[in-house]
Amino acid sequence: MNAIPQLPPENVFDWLDTEAEKRADAGLVRRLRARPAQADELDLAGNDYLGLARDKRVVGAAAAAAMRWGAGATGSRLVTGSTELHAELELELARFCGAQAALVFSSGFAANLGAVTALSGAESAIVTDKYIHASLIEGCRLSRADVAAVAHATPSAIQHALSTRRKPRALVVTDSVFSVDGDLAPLGELAEICRGAGAALLVDDAHGFGVLGEGGRGAVHAAGLSASPDVVTTVTLSKSLGAQGGAVIGPRRVIKHLVDTARSFIFDTALAPASVAAALTALNVLKADPSLPTKVTDNAGNIAMQLKAAGLRASLPDAAVISVQAPSAEAAVTWAESCADQGIRVGCFRPPSVPDGISRLRLTARADLTEADVDRAVKVITATAPRGAAA
Amino acid sequence: MNAIPQLPPENVFDWLDTEAEKRADAGLVRRLRARPAQADELDLAGNDYLGLARDKRVVGAAAAAAMRWGAGATGSRLVTGSTELHAELELELARFCGAQAALVFSSGFAANLGAVTALSGAESAIVTDKYIHASLIEGCRLSRADVAAVAHATPSAIQHALSTRRKPRALVVTDSVFSVDGDLAPLGELAEICRGAGAALLVDDAHGFGVLGEGGRGAVHAAGLSASPDVVTTVTLSKSLGAQGGAVIGPRRVIKHLVDTARSFIFDTALAPASVAAALTALNVLKADPSLPTKVTDNAGNIAMQLKAAGLRASLPDAAVISVQAPSAEAAVTWAESCADQGIRVGCFRPPSVPDGISRLRLTARADLTEADVDRAVKVITATAPRGAAA
Repeated sequence: MNAIPQLPPENVFDWLDTEAEKRADAGLVRRLRARPAQADELDLAGNDYLGLARDKRVVGAAAAAAMRWGAGATGSRLVTGSTELHAELELELARFCGAQAALVFSSGFAANLGAVTALSGAESAIVTDKYIHASLIEGCRLSRADVAAVAHATPSAIQHALSTRRKPRALVVTDSVFSVDGDLAPLGELAEICRGAGAALLVDDAHGFGVLGEGGRGAVHAAGLSASPDVVTTVTLSKSLGAQGGAVIGPRRVIKHLVDTARSFIFDTALAPASVAAALTALNVLKADPSLPTKVTDNAGNIAMQLKAAGLRASLPDAAVISVQAPSAEAAVTWAESCADQGIRVGCFRPPSVPDGISRLRLTARADLTEADVDRAVKVITATAPRGAAA
Repeated sequence: MNAIPQLPPENVFDWLDTEAEKRADAGLVRRLRARPAQADELDLAGNDYLGLARDKRVVGAAAAAAMRWGAGATGSRLVTGSTELHAELELELARFCGAQAALVFSSGFAANLGAVTALSGAESAIVTDKYIHASLIEGCRLSRADVAAVAHATPSAIQHALSTRRKPRALVVTDSVFSVDGDLAPLGELAEICRGAGAALLVDDAHGFGVLGEGGRGAVHAAGLSASPDVVTTVTLSKSLGAQGGAVIGPRRVIKHLVDTARSFIFDTALAPASVAAALTALNVLKADPSLPTKVTDNAGNIAMQLKAAGLRASLPDAAVISVQAPSAEAAVTWAESCADQGIRVGCFRPPSVPDGISRLRLTARADLTEADVDRAVKVITATAPRGAAA
């Protein structure tokens, strides 16, 4: 046992400064930049893929819901926080995806925590692609299951881990569109592997929902899996639907199980009525204009091809997300700042947000980008590229 | 190694039905009840302590923010999700509490996850009161720290665990007002113990903020600890402020550390502008009327004393929360339903939401309850009490 330190109160958090210095040395300090309501810059960093966060119908519905239902839900979903709006959104999400049921959480992060923990446990094995989203990783850590995180985009590694597991029950966890590089998981193949091994499949479709599949029904629907009795999907309401929140979509018995057991559902305040109404209205806008998702993927493909043609290491996007590799964390920060100085807001992903340790610019396409927007973005990103960024 | 089961897809989730049957047998099935926008019933179940969720100024601010800033924040706080509204709310929360800085999360659950994990780690010991909120428990499970959960409301047990810890660094974690029974942690005594042991103190003031202390500055402020260099506070924006979200309040270096390292901050979509504006306006309403918190505690005390006088096992509230013990989970459910049938909405807490396994009604007082409301509530709760509920 170590001796208990005699630390004056003002020194108890000195270790945070030591950690901060290490991050500064590694170029990993983060800064919050508060944006104004109306920015002149072109946003290629956010996740408002369909451009609905500022759609008049969507913000009008949010405003009306706040007036009618109150600013907050007043309690957890099981106490006073479930409104008829929540129930309607859950019904519509399930219908849209062709699934039996859905459950709305206050965030996609909370939905992922709840789904992973409630659908596994000490009697389960979990097998994941090692590049899954941080919220799924946190869910795995909380699950008490045997967790195997295997090589990215390698179905055979998933299959091997399933076949050598020590627990009879198993859950395979993957993103549909990986959030850093925007590449697609082979969902059909993964479902086949699960079926051969008696495992369930949990897919985080945060970046596929509203962007991929028929009318934006998502990657799980596109793979023909959204009505499957052994597949569960999580989505966010804060990306293509322009609002806030998350949801789990799947078999009715899964949803009932989550209501009874998911701690991130039971012990969390319900999503605010304004966000529920915004997501519901955005879903209706999407249903009414099924061409919106195609515009996103067309724009993303166009940006990526032009960046590649200019010699940059851009990923070829399967959905809205394009990554462009940078030679270092510092170079990525400077590059993103140079873009911002010239009116183009891009994301900058560094460790620990990048699973492979490679810092990059992260661009996202939107349905409402014009050809001129795309041209301007490509010009600025190319002109500001640091030494070492070319392929 | 067990043999891999040959399970058809439709049977992969059969185990959920088995679990559901066990819960049904134990009286632990939960049902979502979607409420209408305008309910006739008297709400003694929600956490809208100051009655601000439907305040015209608060909902007006939420609606205006949705129109001006959009329905969603469009991204995580470090990418596009930080608006000037978020920055203003953080400044005002810190000022109100007399602390150096604050950081807004999308929920109190996320704030607790972030604070516990970022302020501990594999090199730390965590000592907690065993009745802390579920979100803090999840944070402890994620922390990789040595975790000791000791007897409820027993400072000597905290002290013993600190003095026998194996890690030099230590964090004591407690609720200020425990969410089930509404009793108060001895914050002054805990701070002294921490100071004698070189430990930091993290207080979840979800049920104290807006209700206790000078003008509702919370239990940490009331204990004279809100400016301490070794104390960190978490609050929700969804209870006394009537909105959605959570925040961590404390020393500037703690907040900077969270921005760089808290995974539930970095990897989560930012709180929607409408909720940020609602919380900011509710905070201004509270500042303008510092008598609101006293009304809450007066009403809570009044309800509890009348229930005790009627022979029920009601807790004597330190804040807004009153618990009334029930003889069983089934009896608690029936009791709560009988109250609802007679127009009084009360909470019903059963395992796993009650750390001691005792099911109870959970009542919450509000600033805007009238004397007639209180009388009616007491009459209905008493008249519907099950056999075995009396002390």
